[in-house]
Amino acid sequence: MPLYLEDFTPGAVFELGQIEMTRERILSFAREFDPQPFHTDEEAAKSSVYGGLIASGWHTCAAFMRLFVDGVLGRAASLGSPGVDEVRWLKPVRPGDVLRARYTVLAVEPHPRRPDRGTVRSLAELFNQDGVLVMSLRAANLFSRRP
Amino acid sequence: MPLYLEDFTPGAVFELGQIEMTRERILSFAREFDPQPFHTDEEAAKSSVYGGLIASGWHTCAAFMRLFVDGVLGRAASLGSPGVDEVRWLKPVRPGDVLRARYTVLAVEPHPRRPDRGTVRSLAELFNQDGVLVMSLRAANLFSRRP
Repeated sequence: MPLYLEDFTPGAVFELGQIEMTRERILSFAREFDPQPFHTDEEAAKSSVYGGLIASGWHTCAAFMRLFVDGVLGRAASLGSPGVDEVRWLKPVRPGDVLRARYTVLAVEPHPRRPDRGTVRSLAELFNQDGVLVMSLRAANLFSRRP
Repeated sequence: MPLYLEDFTPGAVFELGQIEMTRERILSFAREFDPQPFHTDEEAAKSSVYGGLIASGWHTCAAFMRLFVDGVLGRAASLGSPGVDEVRWLKPVRPGDVLRARYTVLAVEPHPRRPDRGTVRSLAELFNQDGVLVMSLRAANLFSRRP
């Protein structure tokens, strides 16, 4: 049975597991979508402000999304998302980092016009293998009510 | 000569060109990062609220980033970004859509502690081939001052 809007309550925490950011994928993602030298060029990255290769922030967002789909959305009556707020890239994500995600429900709101659905507002956090918070974002997701 | 902080003035508009969202890349991006049926499964997407396949919102963000790097960051003294605000996925992005990006400078702020750099706050907009605004986001980027 999928998760419906009623299954999300403010304060609920979902632990979403972990994902590794490999050097190969950091490089290939950045070459396609974010070709700045500190994302695509090991040598140039060393002399950048980051002192070494780091993942594109959008790659980190996408990695979080995979964990969120595997842990929540993939078993929920999800109707998509109008957007996200306050994406914060707090610390560099480096090759080999293993990121762990946590999803905390902040608020559950009825849809202003559609009684069959509602919005879950949440805080998403991504920690590295040292427990350091590397990214946070505030999301909104639409879910069906239980039929 | 790269673009420095001084080259960004409030109200300045940068047209960033366009990028096509192919069916193949929409599917492969979503299978890796956002495996929800309306992003990964043509048939399932037809019976979803979107009535057909749509791109992951994170894929649209990444596509914007590519245009932003090609048009601005790649020729600027960029020091990275602390994050973005208010990502709004306003309309579905569908296979074959050609997205055009625009970057508008909203504010330029000195760094509170580092006199050699500052922050550009901006509005990014992505339009489809019909001129419909499909995504907007508010970004912050750090740039070096002219030496």
